[in-house]
Amino acid sequence: MSTAELKHASTPAPGIHPPPSPDKFFETMHAYQRTAALKAAIELDLFTAVGEGLKTVPELAKRASASERGIRALCDYMAILGFLTKVEGRYGLTADSAVFLDKKSPAYVGSATQFMVSPLVTDGFRDLTAVVRSGRPLSEEPLTQDAHPAWVDFARSMAPVLRMAAQETEKLVRTEASIKVLDVAAGHGMFGITVAQHNPKAKIVALDWPSVLTVAQEYAQRSGVSDRYTLLPGDAFEVSLGTGFDVVLVPNFLHHWDRVTIETFLRKVHAALSPAGRIVAVEFAPNDDRISPPVAAAFVMNMLALTPGGDAYTASEYQEMLRSAGFSPCTVHPLLPTPETAIVGVKK
Amino acid sequence: MSTAELKHASTPAPGIHPPPSPDKFFETMHAYQRTAALKAAIELDLFTAVGEGLKTVPELAKRASASERGIRALCDYMAILGFLTKVEGRYGLTADSAVFLDKKSPAYVGSATQFMVSPLVTDGFRDLTAVVRSGRPLSEEPLTQDAHPAWVDFARSMAPVLRMAAQETEKLVRTEASIKVLDVAAGHGMFGITVAQHNPKAKIVALDWPSVLTVAQEYAQRSGVSDRYTLLPGDAFEVSLGTGFDVVLVPNFLHHWDRVTIETFLRKVHAALSPAGRIVAVEFAPNDDRISPPVAAAFVMNMLALTPGGDAYTASEYQEMLRSAGFSPCTVHPLLPTPETAIVGVKK
Repeated sequence: MSTAELKHASTPAPGIHPPPSPDKFFETMHAYQRTAALKAAIELDLFTAVGEGLKTVPELAKRASASERGIRALCDYMAILGFLTKVEGRYGLTADSAVFLDKKSPAYVGSATQFMVSPLVTDGFRDLTAVVRSGRPLSEEPLTQDAHPAWVDFARSMAPVLRMAAQETEKLVRTEASIKVLDVAAGHGMFGITVAQHNPKAKIVALDWPSVLTVAQEYAQRSGVSDRYTLLPGDAFEVSLGTGFDVVLVPNFLHHWDRVTIETFLRKVHAALSPAGRIVAVEFAPNDDRISPPVAAAFVMNMLALTPGGDAYTASEYQEMLRSAGFSPCTVHPLLPTPETAIVGVKK
Repeated sequence: MSTAELKHASTPAPGIHPPPSPDKFFETMHAYQRTAALKAAIELDLFTAVGEGLKTVPELAKRASASERGIRALCDYMAILGFLTKVEGRYGLTADSAVFLDKKSPAYVGSATQFMVSPLVTDGFRDLTAVVRSGRPLSEEPLTQDAHPAWVDFARSMAPVLRMAAQETEKLVRTEASIKVLDVAAGHGMFGITVAQHNPKAKIVALDWPSVLTVAQEYAQRSGVSDRYTLLPGDAFEVSLGTGFDVVLVPNFLHHWDRVTIETFLRKVHAALSPAGRIVAVEFAPNDDRISPPVAAAFVMNMLALTPGGDAYTASEYQEMLRSAGFSPCTVHPLLPTPETAIVGVKK
């Protein structure tokens, strides 16, 4: 089909669509500047300063020990992007920024920048042409290969981000019964800890690398559940999981691997569960079209750039893998308003 | 003002606004992946391949000599971002991509990636926190310091992008009279050449570094105006401009410098013009609020990261500088649909 035909096909009713525009192209070619600027604003703690009532360029520059030229450009750009308001030369917080970007807010997520835009992650995108050509990450030492220290950073910085998904996941396994729960690749431990907080009879076993488990243990202590919190240090594929679990939580873990590896691991989880025990995987799981919803679907780029065989598997694919490993029924539960989905499988 | 007060102030009518969300934060922290992916799609010439009728992952992977894993992720991501359509597993061009990203289209702008996301530009953003602190670029050798070879790349790759602005600018100086035109920092030469194409009596003098002028000369030849096209090689601040010009075009040049430097240069232009001659500066000139329109206003980040004293000056500021250099009246002309603005000053 020629370009002209395609144009015609896409614009069936002349006058209804705007004329073709390169705007989205230019916006996207500059999109990296958005990330760089928001990272700088977080690192300079600009939103906390505005939240404290500093509203002008000189005030904010003084507070951040920064140049007025730089602060003016950065604040204006944050206003253009919708992270600040600007009225008569004075900046203010938007509703979203007040809740999520002001360090004094309990829902602050700014710490996530430490992992999300660490060189370890962003370097994987520095030559995506080469990645697409080979189908493999640029680095031969992927995040998933060993007890990478990045996962300690991840555990610390991403905890606030995943709190809401953990809360929604807990609702799926809520019970007053005494249960034994395994939290696989616990990281910050948020998923298991949230279950323990709601159910005083729940006992949690947290599995992760030893270095990462120090973070989970710290959060368990702070959350007052450490007396029911046991550590299982090691590699999830190699360590003995034990048996008799009522629930195995597998949050944000399966996506790192290829299907054969995942199915092998799911069989291992199956063996660790009691009869009628449940696995709860938490994932970015797009629809079958693989392009919706956008945030879950876009996760595929992280898996392409950073893992040799990972993927943003669809919810249907996770259900297939679970069934193949001996789980039935397998159900799908969007963890709204987060972009994640829980896939629950019952041990046959 | 406290966070709670601000939240209240921003949400006066409960139920009307959506609840606070961190979505924009996460979208922005991932925005760099959009740039990396679109750059890869351009480099792999994905849009041209889809335009030729290749619509499936295996077809496109074969054509690009790339992995199916990589092509599938990249095409899905392009569909998520709106650069491709996807219907029943088959990709197609959007109306915009067919016109601007298919190499066979005369309006192709994909070559702009060569300059826009060259390390020379993007490296300036790799530590924006440091840039904001100091108010100076990370590199001590800014683009504006000497005859940087990047400007040859710029001239070649940005010509298609600036064609529309050049066409709109030409309308502002259209005449049937014999005129002498100086094109300052001509680059690709598009602005002067467009004037010469419309007015067979126009004579153009193109000023730029010698290496860049080879590009302008090539385009002038291709456009059939080389017999009225003279080269003035050198540094715009140091070279003698000559006298008796009816029009001096200054496209995308002034923004690189501080106000004192700009005003000094404007006086030099003033001296080169005939009585009642006109200067036409083409610029990203935001409104007085400095945050609208968004594309022109966001240009400030490029100037902060890449120049020691440049800015996205407002149209009012350019008018002030022109008046201070002896021009009056000074008028402002948005070059729609481009994001640029012409500021025209008449020699008093």
